[in-house]
Amino acid sequence: MDFSIPAHLEPMLDRIRHFVDTELIPLEPRFLNEEFRHLLPILADKRRQVQAMGLWAPWLPAEYGGMGLPLAEYAHVSEVLGRTPLGHYVFNCQAPDVGNMEVLMMYGSPEQQAHWLDPLARGEIRSCFCMTEPENPGSNPVLMDATAVKDGDDYVINGHKWFSTAADGAAMAIVMAITNPEADSRHKRASQILVPTDTPGYRLVRNISVMGEAGSDHASHAEVVFENCRVPQSNLLGPEGAGFQIAQERLGPGRIHHCMRWIGIAERALDLLCAYAVRRRLSSSAMLSDQQAVQFWIAESRAEIDAARLLVLHAAWRIDRVGASAARVEISTIKFVVANMLQQVLDRAIQVHGALGMTDDTPLSYWYRHERAARIYDGPDEVHKWVVARSVLAKYRQ
Amino acid sequence: MDFSIPAHLEPMLDRIRHFVDTELIPLEPRFLNEEFRHLLPILADKRRQVQAMGLWAPWLPAEYGGMGLPLAEYAHVSEVLGRTPLGHYVFNCQAPDVGNMEVLMMYGSPEQQAHWLDPLARGEIRSCFCMTEPENPGSNPVLMDATAVKDGDDYVINGHKWFSTAADGAAMAIVMAITNPEADSRHKRASQILVPTDTPGYRLVRNISVMGEAGSDHASHAEVVFENCRVPQSNLLGPEGAGFQIAQERLGPGRIHHCMRWIGIAERALDLLCAYAVRRRLSSSAMLSDQQAVQFWIAESRAEIDAARLLVLHAAWRIDRVGASAARVEISTIKFVVANMLQQVLDRAIQVHGALGMTDDTPLSYWYRHERAARIYDGPDEVHKWVVARSVLAKYRQ
Amino acid sequence: MDFSIPAHLEPMLDRIRHFVDTELIPLEPRFLNEEFRHLLPILADKRRQVQAMGLWAPWLPAEYGGMGLPLAEYAHVSEVLGRTPLGHYVFNCQAPDVGNMEVLMMYGSPEQQAHWLDPLARGEIRSCFCMTEPENPGSNPVLMDATAVKDGDDYVINGHKWFSTAADGAAMAIVMAITNPEADSRHKRASQILVPTDTPGYRLVRNISVMGEAGSDHASHAEVVFENCRVPQSNLLGPEGAGFQIAQERLGPGRIHHCMRWIGIAERALDLLCAYAVRRRLSSSAMLSDQQAVQFWIAESRAEIDAARLLVLHAAWRIDRVGASAARVEISTIKFVVANMLQQVLDRAIQVHGALGMTDDTPLSYWYRHERAARIYDGPDEVHKWVVARSVLAKYRQ
Amino acid sequence: MDFSIPAHLEPMLDRIRHFVDTELIPLEPRFLNEEFRHLLPILADKRRQVQAMGLWAPWLPAEYGGMGLPLAEYAHVSEVLGRTPLGHYVFNCQAPDVGNMEVLMMYGSPEQQAHWLDPLARGEIRSCFCMTEPENPGSNPVLMDATAVKDGDDYVINGHKWFSTAADGAAMAIVMAITNPEADSRHKRASQILVPTDTPGYRLVRNISVMGEAGSDHASHAEVVFENCRVPQSNLLGPEGAGFQIAQERLGPGRIHHCMRWIGIAERALDLLCAYAVRRRLSSSAMLSDQQAVQFWIAESRAEIDAARLLVLHAAWRIDRVGASAARVEISTIKFVVANMLQQVLDRAIQVHGALGMTDDTPLSYWYRHERAARIYDGPDEVHKWVVARSVLAKYRQ
Repeated sequence: MDFSIPAHLEPMLDRIRHFVDTELIPLEPRFLNEEFRHLLPILADKRRQVQAMGLWAPWLPAEYGGMGLPLAEYAHVSEVLGRTPLGHYVFNCQAPDVGNMEVLMMYGSPEQQAHWLDPLARGEIRSCFCMTEPENPGSNPVLMDATAVKDGDDYVINGHKWFSTAADGAAMAIVMAITNPEADSRHKRASQILVPTDTPGYRLVRNISVMGEAGSDHASHAEVVFENCRVPQSNLLGPEGAGFQIAQERLGPGRIHHCMRWIGIAERALDLLCAYAVRRRLSSSAMLSDQQAVQFWIAESRAEIDAARLLVLHAAWRIDRVGASAARVEISTIKFVVANMLQQVLDRAIQVHGALGMTDDTPLSYWYRHERAARIYDGPDEVHKWVVARSVLAKYRQ
Repeated sequence: MDFSIPAHLEPMLDRIRHFVDTELIPLEPRFLNEEFRHLLPILADKRRQVQAMGLWAPWLPAEYGGMGLPLAEYAHVSEVLGRTPLGHYVFNCQAPDVGNMEVLMMYGSPEQQAHWLDPLARGEIRSCFCMTEPENPGSNPVLMDATAVKDGDDYVINGHKWFSTAADGAAMAIVMAITNPEADSRHKRASQILVPTDTPGYRLVRNISVMGEAGSDHASHAEVVFENCRVPQSNLLGPEGAGFQIAQERLGPGRIHHCMRWIGIAERALDLLCAYAVRRRLSSSAMLSDQQAVQFWIAESRAEIDAARLLVLHAAWRIDRVGASAARVEISTIKFVVANMLQQVLDRAIQVHGALGMTDDTPLSYWYRHERAARIYDGPDEVHKWVVARSVLAKYRQ
Repeated sequence: MDFSIPAHLEPMLDRIRHFVDTELIPLEPRFLNEEFRHLLPILADKRRQVQAMGLWAPWLPAEYGGMGLPLAEYAHVSEVLGRTPLGHYVFNCQAPDVGNMEVLMMYGSPEQQAHWLDPLARGEIRSCFCMTEPENPGSNPVLMDATAVKDGDDYVINGHKWFSTAADGAAMAIVMAITNPEADSRHKRASQILVPTDTPGYRLVRNISVMGEAGSDHASHAEVVFENCRVPQSNLLGPEGAGFQIAQERLGPGRIHHCMRWIGIAERALDLLCAYAVRRRLSSSAMLSDQQAVQFWIAESRAEIDAARLLVLHAAWRIDRVGASAARVEISTIKFVVANMLQQVLDRAIQVHGALGMTDDTPLSYWYRHERAARIYDGPDEVHKWVVARSVLAKYRQ
Repeated sequence: MDFSIPAHLEPMLDRIRHFVDTELIPLEPRFLNEEFRHLLPILADKRRQVQAMGLWAPWLPAEYGGMGLPLAEYAHVSEVLGRTPLGHYVFNCQAPDVGNMEVLMMYGSPEQQAHWLDPLARGEIRSCFCMTEPENPGSNPVLMDATAVKDGDDYVINGHKWFSTAADGAAMAIVMAITNPEADSRHKRASQILVPTDTPGYRLVRNISVMGEAGSDHASHAEVVFENCRVPQSNLLGPEGAGFQIAQERLGPGRIHHCMRWIGIAERALDLLCAYAVRRRLSSSAMLSDQQAVQFWIAESRAEIDAARLLVLHAAWRIDRVGASAARVEISTIKFVVANMLQQVLDRAIQVHGALGMTDDTPLSYWYRHERAARIYDGPDEVHKWVVARSVLAKYRQ
């Protein structure tokens, strides 16, 4: 075993960390107190800086303008970007565009790629992914009501979706809908279809108020209705009935991205915790950092973050070697481990900050609120624990 | 021991519960998605209904227009009101007015009572309490920078306060400031002074953005600056130098109020959890409530809520019998126990609701965000654990 | 509500506590380092002292030589006795004799009572209860293999039992066996039958080595085999087929006994923890009790014990008022709450004692080992959580 | 990063695992129910088998008859050996002999090595380490009362030690005693001295009863008194006053050994848990493994074990690269993380086994009892958390 980070990675990570610290973290007060769309011009500037520095879209193959890092290397970048809520967006690594671009690379026709992938890769447009339905549990993806029915050369889509992240302002939506209701396998009934958001019948009902904020633009989650929404059959992405399979494939690497982002958040939270603890006076003789409780939270956070990172890097290494499907159990493991670690660390950081931790004067409150979803989306803890247990138990049932 | 609830209390609690369920809970969607001040007219209507029903201000002595319930009986009312974020406000039981009225009853001069207590009791005005300072830890109340210096017949107040709950729209502030910096005891240096909010030098800087919301009116927490703010010395509340003692006295019963309110929240959260679990389908053969994990969360929540309630009722019974000071340890105990129980139950309720739990379509998200402060204000967990441990250990050090 | 302990109870509890402290705790080193049977003579002396003081068998009706305390009062006694592993035995309150006597009082024929109940009540003999079977889960009592088949005037019993507590030295066993395999309800197939332990075919295979100790006499758990063990049908206890119902009835009050005993253990553990913490020096300037971690454990233990006690006393009060069946959910609640509280408190006490906590120089190690079973016997945590959840959810399914 | 296990290691681990499974695990029932010393003959046979297979003392340099594995490779072996309580002993990897041999290799004179190291390496004798004192906290090693005073050519040792593991049957003890009470640094006052156990004045008072067992021979922890125990000054090990430094050096790799052993235990416990869960029937329709609670425990255990292993392997890799001193924080981290993980996993395995888990029919009870010490010896959790926090905070105090 060799736990060293590749030598070529360190200077790049240093540059990215420096950019995050000096260019993005200073924007956080605006991010935390203004609407996201008001920040679009300044963020566009920052994106140009990133492109000029050659650090654009590190996970994206060079042919599309990215840095072409393998997953296990990009993981480190994702952690550094995760230190601020603005990091991934400015480096064009934000969900769901990353996943949509990956799917377009793997399954898009040349026309689809030219039309959608190229401008996404350049950061000129944004996209969304319409899968979750309010009336069906996200934990069981085969329960889906949305349909896409062939009519002439078109699909006519009807359905009710929500938690379509970043739909506000998106130019295109990838929609999961049942195209083959009679397929033998419940996993072969849905397809993924590209829908321009200006298509008649596509309606963004609202940006859902989530943890106190409806948000806007990229920083939002929409409820979307498809009412006889008609697109040409050429908008089908990949084979018909392959919707679930494609969704699964995007989730593997996507969970690495998320988990490393969460680790970046946790590192920043611990950073804020420690910095505050050493400067906050409790009495004439004691600083907050002299409290044993605070020290224990630091030690436990340090240990939990380090353990989580090793698990994620190991999973990324496995995906790079054997593929996301064979690394399914490792991926489920990190999903629940890292999400819970993150919640713990954020909770401790808020407690140490006291009243200040409740305010939006630090990013802790933002993460505390919005990253509560980490234990829910992309499969709740409960589903991932079941996946792991099922795999472990299988060996004993033979 | 007799654990039965007094017979006269049950029908009153039923009436209050019915009012909460039919008149206030239907207002929650507006509360969760609009500014509080937009709800003032409808809430004024509801307040009039409460007065007409004879249920106004249950904790307040009858001479001031309340129901005059002893603490151990009001506790049950506070639980029922806690089921909705609107309950305490509509029944004129909201912090910090309750505490301010209590202090005015105990320490106010006849003139102060006529001027402030009566309209507060009638719900015509609101007040705030300016104690916490951004640069000093709330956990150590003797660390305070605000000063009130005598000048002629006046006090001239200078200081920087924050988390002055409900200052927005308040007619009067009770301010803690150092009046006797040379007092022997650090606990005898501060006084409480009444400051009309239209006094020159009183400045509400901002409603602090807390967990994503600056809020408004009663539902807000302000940063307030006092700059050479001059009030007559007759505005002193109680004896000079008695500020800490008065603050302590208000906190004992206040913690019972809060803890029972939290229990009401927890009951409502468990209620929402169960109602959702039995109607949410996971698959063709299973409802969410069939999951053993969900069942365990229900059982654990049921047990934790019941245990917490007994602890609080026991503490209230002790305060009624021996006073808040002698029940200090019981009060510290419930403070950290109930606050942590609440966080657990809310977390489980959100997890069961999945994506819906993240939205503001239920009150869970509101409580998850704002009641995170339960472990911080009125003394963080850490201070209360220390109080309990110190008391326990004292017996072994003799 | 009235949380005060009845006035007549306090002086009695003081006398019992004094006896425990001065007569029984000094015997603990012998108990912890010798075989139980070696202590029988000295314990017999102590039992005579208890009888002479009029404190014998507090839970037993006066007609049988006890003090006749109602459950809610005996609960307090059980806590005091629980402070030492010897308490219940010396006061003739030990399981399983208590339960067996209760069943004999309720269901025994006059002949059965004369033969068995009277000498048990006087402490002249001991008994055991043979229910659990190694091949069947204790959590599902209707799964049972032991049979009692009528043959002439006899029952012929065959079966394999274990965890028959205190079978070593018992004069009589109450055995659960299937007598009515064809009964409609699975809950009406078993009966309880009295078996003198000198009956041919009754064989004590071994005292099971439990947590490192096979133990002896009262302090043991046996594996017992019944091989064509023949007893007269007049040994049937209560109606045929009523075995489960009788078992359920004994468990309700029995769980109050156990839970209060556990609370007594937890109090003693916290007592040892604090006493050690104030006298153990960590450095020239600090005692162990100065550690914030230790203080937190004390505060959390204090809170958890107090909450647990209130829950148990409330359940006992309910049983006294409405019966064990109607208080089923409260009983399940305390079972898992108190057992887990106990494990926590013991774990902290051991951690504070360091290496000493690992030794048998204190009773902590004994309880840590043997009371681990608290979360398993009489229904594991998991079953009791399910009972509570099922009851809570029932209201939402209507 | 490269997480693959070196190719040459796999077949060796397979051979060791096979030996453990087929030769040692079958001896567990005897180990769990008999005195250790009764097993000495059969264990001597197994040791010869191991020597014949060329697997003897894998951590020991080849020149002393071992396999000479680097720490990061031996770590994997230690995990496999940890699967049974007999593993390390049979492969001559047992504490405290490993540490004593390491110290002798590093600091022993040629005479000392010839006299003690060689027979220890061949497994012909055993040794012990006398450091912990009953009256001083193990968490603060500079508090020590034992003295070694020069008198002529000798040291005269007086002191009271306990938890001298495996002193029963040991030929030699390495003793920590104050030789330089006036040294400036408190860390330079003690020395390590070799004391043959047949030296007059060396007295093994008792094998301490630990968690219900005094044990014997290698499986014991002794209280030892030194009363004017006289040894030649040539028995000094390393420089005078270097006792603490030497002790620290042995602890670094020693903690890797322990932690990987604990991981082996945890793997075995999870193995037993799963094997039992799939074969234990709960009802006509459900196995124990169908319980979601059991599945969650499996998933959480799987995740926690895997995370712990990566942390330990990373720490071992760091020690191999930068030395134990520079990896101090990583070592403290794994100490408390792995010890707590182990306790969790064992607790779950016992709960799943129910009554069987309480018995000594499986090794779970043995580990539950004796490995409770993992959170105490070699520094309790609290000390290691403080070490980590101090290191983290140092960066913020600059």
